[in-house]
Amino acid sequence: MFDLAIIGGGPAGFFAAECAGNQGLKVILFEKDTLGGVCINEGCIPAKTLLNSIQAYNIVKDAEKYGIIIDKNASKFSMELALQQKEKVVRNMQTIVSDKFNSDIATLVQGKASIKGRSADGSITICCEDQEYRSKNLLICTGSRPDMPEIPGIESSLVCTYDIMLNSTELPQKLVMIGGGQVSIELAHIYNSLGAEITILEENDEILLDTDNEICSVLREEYAKRGIITHLNTRISKIEGNKVFFSIKGVEMTAEGEKILCDIGRRPNLEGFGLENLDVECYRKGIRINNQMQTSEPNVFAAGDVTGFSKSAHAAYCEAAVAINTILGIDDHMNFKAVPTCVFSSPEIAHVGITEETLNLAWRPHKIIRLPLTQSSRYVIQDHEFEGLCKIIVGEDETILGVHIIGNNCSEAIVAAVMAVESQMTISEWRKIVFPYPTIGEVMKGTLIYAQIPFEQPKYDRSNSRK
Amino acid sequence: MFDLAIIGGGPAGFFAAECAGNQGLKVILFEKDTLGGVCINEGCIPAKTLLNSIQAYNIVKDAEKYGIIIDKNASKFSMELALQQKEKVVRNMQTIVSDKFNSDIATLVQGKASIKGRSADGSITICCEDQEYRSKNLLICTGSRPDMPEIPGIESSLVCTYDIMLNSTELPQKLVMIGGGQVSIELAHIYNSLGAEITILEENDEILLDTDNEICSVLREEYAKRGIITHLNTRISKIEGNKVFFSIKGVEMTAEGEKILCDIGRRPNLEGFGLENLDVECYRKGIRINNQMQTSEPNVFAAGDVTGFSKSAHAAYCEAAVAINTILGIDDHMNFKAVPTCVFSSPEIAHVGITEETLNLAWRPHKIIRLPLTQSSRYVIQDHEFEGLCKIIVGEDETILGVHIIGNNCSEAIVAAVMAVESQMTISEWRKIVFPYPTIGEVMKGTLIYAQIPFEQPKYDRSNSRK
Repeated sequence: MFDLAIIGGGPAGFFAAECAGNQGLKVILFEKDTLGGVCINEGCIPAKTLLNSIQAYNIVKDAEKYGIIIDKNASKFSMELALQQKEKVVRNMQTIVSDKFNSDIATLVQGKASIKGRSADGSITICCEDQEYRSKNLLICTGSRPDMPEIPGIESSLVCTYDIMLNSTELPQKLVMIGGGQVSIELAHIYNSLGAEITILEENDEILLDTDNEICSVLREEYAKRGIITHLNTRISKIEGNKVFFSIKGVEMTAEGEKILCDIGRRPNLEGFGLENLDVECYRKGIRINNQMQTSEPNVFAAGDVTGFSKSAHAAYCEAAVAINTILGIDDHMNFKAVPTCVFSSPEIAHVGITEETLNLAWRPHKIIRLPLTQSSRYVIQDHEFEGLCKIIVGEDETILGVHIIGNNCSEAIVAAVMAVESQMTISEWRKIVFPYPTIGEVMKGTLIYAQIPFEQPKYDRSNSRK
Repeated sequence: MFDLAIIGGGPAGFFAAECAGNQGLKVILFEKDTLGGVCINEGCIPAKTLLNSIQAYNIVKDAEKYGIIIDKNASKFSMELALQQKEKVVRNMQTIVSDKFNSDIATLVQGKASIKGRSADGSITICCEDQEYRSKNLLICTGSRPDMPEIPGIESSLVCTYDIMLNSTELPQKLVMIGGGQVSIELAHIYNSLGAEITILEENDEILLDTDNEICSVLREEYAKRGIITHLNTRISKIEGNKVFFSIKGVEMTAEGEKILCDIGRRPNLEGFGLENLDVECYRKGIRINNQMQTSEPNVFAAGDVTGFSKSAHAAYCEAAVAINTILGIDDHMNFKAVPTCVFSSPEIAHVGITEETLNLAWRPHKIIRLPLTQSSRYVIQDHEFEGLCKIIVGEDETILGVHIIGNNCSEAIVAAVMAVESQMTISEWRKIVFPYPTIGEVMKGTLIYAQIPFEQPKYDRSNSRK
């Protein structure tokens, strides 16, 4: 009898196994494929490694700015080499993850697990490769997969998802992206840096769901300068050959691409592992959980993408830790208000907490401290053409409610904001922080000067709200 | 009559003027040279811009790792070009600083200011370019200058300070550095990346004063692999020609350099501005202040290097803000325990709070959570050869007392630790933070797993203590 069975060895699953094993629980982890899940093997890590290569390539293109003389004719980007490096990093990550597993931490079972049901003593039976295992608790970490839109012609061989793109050495000169989510936005930066013209077709009136509208529109402007065109409010009617047919407010248009990338979101993996043999409540986005990661069934927990929350590895880690604490009887809960989002575009975006739009819709008074990233000396040293923006949103009780940044390397800087939002810090407390110099995070020292601006009444503007 | 007169327009001075002006005080700022002080014009910004170029150059040298093919014979570093870029960044910083000044914020007077004395009404008179100005309050921000050791031969033309090095297009093949402080350590990285052999002579038993000993020794090991040799416990007897003569525990040795850099610390600027006309108490390191930045004289404040504290721009900013708040009657104080230090070596070092050595000397029980930087996915993505180390020091009451990191980009990540130390966060509160993924800061999520380790009794070891 195990204390905990975990189905799925992605970030939520392997981190939960490590936490639980380290705290003395007897753990079994089932993984049907490779440990690390979509994040390490197909998604985040491969994409971010390629983005790291692109960042280096952009430095090489800009070499003179750094005092380096390079014969431009004798330098080029090799996708073959970059993909080799990506494979190396993925293997390193796989090794780091699997090295954590030994018989002290958890039993790892490779194979397709299936829930059989619950016994009279409340324990849950799981079958894998013809063998049965019993456990007092179950944690479901089965993840998610890309969703595909129902468009005539979607079955075309030109249509692909990010994982296909990230394994291809082809460098398309024209790309269409269906959906303006994080994946499209990051891949647009990669392929545009390698010379491609890109058209992004977004169904809603802004890209990057749940992101501050102003930040999004600033990104679209910067992208447009580089030949990445974004169309909002699009209705796609069909795909024919290399053409995507769409309309905006009734006006018919087409976009052409050698490849057509689909990024309309992810769908939870709820099938194929016997979930139907327990009475777990689901909702539109996945398995319903409370903030202690408990499902509607006793001793059954879920964490990661399958719960339909933030769909980020960092949230998955924390959800996993909360689930394990709950199993151990330690009081813990997830604060979903303080889960950051980072988009590794260029300029980069990072944000946490409430947006201006939400506060306006809720008619909540607030003030916004707006700081250019040139308040950060490191940003000035890096000599960006783009000024950048950091919006700090402060509630009427002086609490920091949200921080929204656009400008390179802001993903590291957002941690300070995560801590402020998580601990409901006031602007006066925040002003005591000595932000190191020169760093990007230093932009936030601007609150020392600008925190005295008055509160504004919310500006309610329907055109600002998302559908 | 002004509300506030400020002598010195470096980071402390110009930031104080901005804070005070924005809050309605009538401010006059005296600067004898260029606004921005040593930091912007000669020290930090020039050095960090050059470090930014070196970082790019190291990427170019490692191009294949990023999937980039470069003809190595057709690429080279040009110090001339790099210095042009440095000049451009310095000009940009100067513009950003001077653009903040207009008649609404403060009156800027270019010239050498001198304190004349105090009038019967308590106001202070300052003379500059034959004109007299009166102010209710005075803030002294006169900064510091490099200290020079008393060694026979120190007047040699081969001996120089960082500001001379940072303006020279010469690329010495051999360098000796007297003193193993931050400046030496950063410049060693720059010139070593450009091919120089470097010998650092440190008087104490470890480099980088006030830095965790283990972190320092790890840096010395990494440096040694690259041809940067560090000698500790050195006693320098003389400089002759290109040779520095020194001994270690009685054994005589020499080190040779085309240039000999001096970095033995900084000395406060206390002379030449009429300080003797007020009865301000000084101590060995500068002007004595309390934690509200008040000197021993009523209405006379000091901030920045002249106070002998952290000698960093980021501390200067906060000290300036505290001084202004004190003048305005707003309760505020400096918490010097939460001032971070960043060393832009490679690997980079960042730390805040108490070290293991100090706790051992004070016989205070504590535990140390030791995390390799490979706990950060971004660090793995960047594929460093060096594993890195993050030491989180936790007190008996579970409070986070200090964080000490070595590994590239840790300067951005340290902010989370600054906030934890500043707000006396416990390890349980810290574990609620969702560190974004993939970032370097993410290494700290390791506390989710490793926070359960037991407390150790302090290890008192005299050999670990600094002189």
